[in-house]
Amino acid sequence: MNTYDEIIQLALERGFYFPSSELYSDANAGFWEYGPNGVRMKNKFLDLWRRELVRRDNMLEIDGSQIMSKNVFMASGHLTNFTDPIVKCKKCSSSFRADKLIQEVAKIDVPERMENEGVDDLILQNNIKCPLCKGEISKSERFNMMFKIEIGPNRDEAYLRPETCQSIFVDFSRLFKVSRGKLPLGIAQVGKSFRNEISPRQGLLRLREFYQAEIEIFCNPAKLNDLNKYDEIKNTLLRFYDTRIVELSVEEALEQEILPNKLVGYYLALLVEFFDKTGIDKKRTRLRRLSDQEKAFYSTVAFDFEVDTSIGWLELVACNYRSDYDLKSHSATSKTNLEVMDEDTKVLPHVFELSLGVDRCIYSILEHSYFIDRQNDDRVVLKLKPYLSPIHAGILPLIKKQEFKDKASKLLSNIRRDFDVFYDESGSIGRRYRRLEEIGTPFAFTIDHQTLADDTITVRFRDSMNQERIKIDEVHSFLSKQILF
Amino acid sequence: MNTYDEIIQLALERGFYFPSSELYSDANAGFWEYGPNGVRMKNKFLDLWRRELVRRDNMLEIDGSQIMSKNVFMASGHLTNFTDPIVKCKKCSSSFRADKLIQEVAKIDVPERMENEGVDDLILQNNIKCPLCKGEISKSERFNMMFKIEIGPNRDEAYLRPETCQSIFVDFSRLFKVSRGKLPLGIAQVGKSFRNEISPRQGLLRLREFYQAEIEIFCNPAKLNDLNKYDEIKNTLLRFYDTRIVELSVEEALEQEILPNKLVGYYLALLVEFFDKTGIDKKRTRLRRLSDQEKAFYSTVAFDFEVDTSIGWLELVACNYRSDYDLKSHSATSKTNLEVMDEDTKVLPHVFELSLGVDRCIYSILEHSYFIDRQNDDRVVLKLKPYLSPIHAGILPLIKKQEFKDKASKLLSNIRRDFDVFYDESGSIGRRYRRLEEIGTPFAFTIDHQTLADDTITVRFRDSMNQERIKIDEVHSFLSKQILF
Repeated sequence: MNTYDEIIQLALERGFYFPSSELYSDANAGFWEYGPNGVRMKNKFLDLWRRELVRRDNMLEIDGSQIMSKNVFMASGHLTNFTDPIVKCKKCSSSFRADKLIQEVAKIDVPERMENEGVDDLILQNNIKCPLCKGEISKSERFNMMFKIEIGPNRDEAYLRPETCQSIFVDFSRLFKVSRGKLPLGIAQVGKSFRNEISPRQGLLRLREFYQAEIEIFCNPAKLNDLNKYDEIKNTLLRFYDTRIVELSVEEALEQEILPNKLVGYYLALLVEFFDKTGIDKKRTRLRRLSDQEKAFYSTVAFDFEVDTSIGWLELVACNYRSDYDLKSHSATSKTNLEVMDEDTKVLPHVFELSLGVDRCIYSILEHSYFIDRQNDDRVVLKLKPYLSPIHAGILPLIKKQEFKDKASKLLSNIRRDFDVFYDESGSIGRRYRRLEEIGTPFAFTIDHQTLADDTITVRFRDSMNQERIKIDEVHSFLSKQILF
Repeated sequence: MNTYDEIIQLALERGFYFPSSELYSDANAGFWEYGPNGVRMKNKFLDLWRRELVRRDNMLEIDGSQIMSKNVFMASGHLTNFTDPIVKCKKCSSSFRADKLIQEVAKIDVPERMENEGVDDLILQNNIKCPLCKGEISKSERFNMMFKIEIGPNRDEAYLRPETCQSIFVDFSRLFKVSRGKLPLGIAQVGKSFRNEISPRQGLLRLREFYQAEIEIFCNPAKLNDLNKYDEIKNTLLRFYDTRIVELSVEEALEQEILPNKLVGYYLALLVEFFDKTGIDKKRTRLRRLSDQEKAFYSTVAFDFEVDTSIGWLELVACNYRSDYDLKSHSATSKTNLEVMDEDTKVLPHVFELSLGVDRCIYSILEHSYFIDRQNDDRVVLKLKPYLSPIHAGILPLIKKQEFKDKASKLLSNIRRDFDVFYDESGSIGRRYRRLEEIGTPFAFTIDHQTLADDTITVRFRDSMNQERIKIDEVHSFLSKQILF
């Protein structure tokens, strides 16, 4: 079994995530749920994101509607451009995403922006047939990936947003005003986005309903190198990939013109510093600059923040310089002037975005934390950062006698509101440790005979398996210190 | 201007919430966004909910898909039962929700479950015409309030969930297993739900897309009075409303048969204790037992937790004893046995739920915290609990000189990751205090001349307006203590 399958199995068995509507045979692919350990980990991951990006940079965070009006997507270009090429088998009527089919059968990477004719030519040239029945493949058509919604008795046309950032663009004008904003201004949002994928992948990697944590930085295009806070990060090391990975400070990358300007450098550095705290192995990450054919339709300069996993390099964050694409088109479609004052000048801000896929991050953190301890009975340990662990601590009465259970319950009720703790009295102490390690719990508190005598307990540390005694009254402050970011 | 309008104005001007897609004329009613202060407050409210309900009672929390398969809603009854009566004007074609129209024109409350014939009779008897053009009103029809979604190239039928709890029912079997659960077991979820309301109300009170925080307690119906933890809350006071409000302890309410059993009493007590910490005035809350005609179609016993506001009593939490309605129908439709073991007995659990409307809670907390200080220049103060305040503290350099700004920036960067702080250097110090009070900021730190001499600052307290001096190094620990739950 490869690591990807091992993580899926752990996720299913230990309540990290699992398929949606799984009782039912009509459940569609591409919909997954977070179980209790997944929710706790995701919430902590988002807390870290807020801490290291939103609050650190004094950004504003909003939470907008997922259903948005048709005009929003007319302006954004999604109604016309947000499509995938689709083909059908003329014999068995199965549908396929054309670029994926070509990639799988002929091992040719089809660029994101290739026209229908190019796709059809590739299918013909490579003699691609239906992988299910060997039938002939139709000409390709465009399939819009937005989900349509009808509102009210008059069935007004609206859509589930395909990216959270559209709320930010549409709300920008009000937000700038009520916050008495100054450029550059970061506006962030965490929320669900929806894409009607033709062929969703298994697990959390290509979903039809997924979490994004997006940041849009509104800036004056004339001042991209005029940034006081640049000094904070100019020595931060970034790992750029072209044909090989090169590690450079932000300053060096600017000198070598790998980075277009200080503003982009500043926010990429913040992003990388954030990821350093997630437990993802920095040596297995890279920033890859996209070619013109790979970029999304609204992007002028684009870097992908990618992470190496057992199934290849995975895009976690799309970093797009969207220029004035969005505000310009919303301004035109809504006939509203979206310019703002930057000191004494009127300016239509440009936008640089950090668009993070939350679900993929959760998967990657799980994979990079997954460890089989060959020295110790092949125990499975998730070496999660304590502040990202679903459960902070286990509380384990050594034996099932009432006086042990009473001490344990008292400890539990003292700390359960402030920490995620798991009370476990069943099975041998060794098995109980294993269950905690497998979900990344950094500490286990054991109530033993000595506890009854002197009100101390043992703390066992997940990674080292070392044990220490501390007073039961000190558990709260011990945890407070240990789970600090 | 009444209080409701004052709160809306404050919300719009200070970034708590505002209409969605407001740039566009085709934006539909019933969709709102949280701005920066709204997001911070909502997140803190949900943290409190997790603390006082989910973690306190060792519940599991999940986060499920919003799009669910058709069979889910076949089983749940929503495909057939989740409808509102709708009528059209025969002249101008406007649509109206029939029960609301009757209520507005004839001041008659139409029960939730009234059949079409009853509705038509009321319209006829009361000679109700179109309020827009006086045209004749059509016979009533049923309008299903779910939003339909088509998935993939084959357009498979699915729906946006109208209540978050359906994920919990469908996932129950897996969750019980992976958590090695024991009855009673609470499973919680926060997330969006969607209802295609015929006539959404203004603001956060009746939305088409809204946040629920739901808790489903799975229990053995034979053991509803067999609950150890009952003793923790038996003296908690609940306020029941029938023709008047009576305050009773849980124990008294059980003796008087106002509460059906200890389990319902226990969870209603937890709910009330939670609300005591939100800043909502307890004296303006009540638990109202619903009549058979008022209850939702799946409910056997129902209490609404209601709060008194400037626009009347508002339902914040629906507390429904759903019996085995949900697991039984999902079991039948999916042909899966959903029974679990409770000690030595196989049982199909019953469900008691606490279904909380998050957006309405936010509105109610704002209204109950809103205070015009007639003693002090009519200053507007949101007397929010410090742990619910969008901004914990303001940082204000007394004058705009560089040395004051430097001290302020240093303080800001020391605490900005751990707390929500707002740096403000523009306008008189009095105006800056007002801006902070208006959004409920409990503390303002001022950097003044003495700061330059001895590294102390003043703390100003929002409600008393008193000031104290503390050392700049102690600000972090001061805030940690003051914003404790």
